[in-house]
Amino acid sequence: MLKGFEKTSVPRETAIEARLAVEDFHAEYCAVLDSGEIEHWPEFFTEQCLYRVTEYENTEYDLPVGLVYAEGRDMLRDRAVAISRTQMFAPRRMLHLMTNVRILAANDEEIVAQSNYLLLQTLVEGATTVHQAGRLYDRFVRNGDALLLKERQAVYDTALIANDLAYPV
Amino acid sequence: MLKGFEKTSVPRETAIEARLAVEDFHAEYCAVLDSGEIEHWPEFFTEQCLYRVTEYENTEYDLPVGLVYAEGRDMLRDRAVAISRTQMFAPRRMLHLMTNVRILAANDEEIVAQSNYLLLQTLVEGATTVHQAGRLYDRFVRNGDALLLKERQAVYDTALIANDLAYPV
Amino acid sequence: MLKGFEKTSVPRETAIEARLAVEDFHAEYCAVLDSGEIEHWPEFFTEQCLYRVTEYENTEYDLPVGLVYAEGRDMLRDRAVAISRTQMFAPRRMLHLMTNVRILAANDEEIVAQSNYLLLQTLVEGATTVHQAGRLYDRFVRNGDALLLKERQAVYDTALIANDLAYPV
Repeated sequence: MLKGFEKTSVPRETAIEARLAVEDFHAEYCAVLDSGEIEHWPEFFTEQCLYRVTEYENTEYDLPVGLVYAEGRDMLRDRAVAISRTQMFAPRRMLHLMTNVRILAANDEEIVAQSNYLLLQTLVEGATTVHQAGRLYDRFVRNGDALLLKERQAVYDTALIANDLAYPV
Repeated sequence: MLKGFEKTSVPRETAIEARLAVEDFHAEYCAVLDSGEIEHWPEFFTEQCLYRVTEYENTEYDLPVGLVYAEGRDMLRDRAVAISRTQMFAPRRMLHLMTNVRILAANDEEIVAQSNYLLLQTLVEGATTVHQAGRLYDRFVRNGDALLLKERQAVYDTALIANDLAYPV
Repeated sequence: MLKGFEKTSVPRETAIEARLAVEDFHAEYCAVLDSGEIEHWPEFFTEQCLYRVTEYENTEYDLPVGLVYAEGRDMLRDRAVAISRTQMFAPRRMLHLMTNVRILAANDEEIVAQSNYLLLQTLVEGATTVHQAGRLYDRFVRNGDALLLKERQAVYDTALIANDLAYPV
């Protein structure tokens, strides 16, 4: 469990509506990343945002360090450019599988959710392997019918992660 | 992105109803395949249908080739018989995990959807391994409360696919 | 297909409501297990319950044997204690991915469902690997807005399962 992401009591109807919205968000977000349009990735976030990818152990000891840490859309844009250039040297396909969406809190403005993810990687001429697996702790703001990420903390289990490319989750 | 499968604007209520219907379809379809009842597989398709399993690279260059190509239920029936005979020589268990359903278009007659899949394979006395992973591009027609597949294009990332058995996705 | 878990006809609205409830249950149940709070695991079951984890082949020949067999919450409590002690010697992270929920029967008191699962394991300093993959056959009783498991039969495909630790699914 990550601090600030405790489960609160949410009315059933609200929770269902929120879960369906989060699942829709995941599907759009992953479709963009998995088709390699990483330049559109920052558009899923609010201008002021926090994005962190970190190992489970760091969260247990409440350490702020992580594989990736970005504050604000501009840092995500920089990161997107860096990744798209790295990819040219070692092209690969990524596939995100999102499951187990759990609504931790929800009101008219915000949704807090936990989800599980499996990120598969396929190198050119290679097999598909588990690149990263873990939990997402998300804080969304409602933006009309859609959602925007104000905070995403991806907490992965995989200790021996290939750190040559930290593709977004 | 596959040609003919562009995301269009779908009213929220329609999209939710369509997604729930597609998820139900996936669960039924996969339950039949995973329990080895491959002879019932063609029943999920319309009489005139297109079924293709192809590598990501082929779709990028818009090549029609693929690992599997079938037009019409009869070709699927032939294929089902061929697979059930092959399986006798090398029995294995298949498990389909379907996630990330995304509604691309939906109206009273048709639903167009994209989904992610992970197909796991377990050989007798063997470990469970990733057999195939990728995206499904589906065109469904409504058939009462249920759906039928008019077109399924499975676009896999896995380049080194075991081609001794192309089990349906 | 497991005996007693045949698909029956369920009205569409009932099936959707039931599926959403089962998916919520899975998310809560797995969040508890994946965060290592195994002492809370038995709370998801009714006092009189059946929990079995078994290989696909055993169900095909209708054999009662399995990797794990427990009757009643007390046996689950014993098991939880045993596992938490074993884990101290070889700490690992588990991650459950639940997909393909299929409603087999549902009424005001009970829901019978089938789901697919992928259980990933990450040893300390190790990679993430497939620990177990298979199907769940569940019988839930309604408990207010929530559900409790009266019966769970996990039927896995993975034949070469690491039997040093049979972590719950």
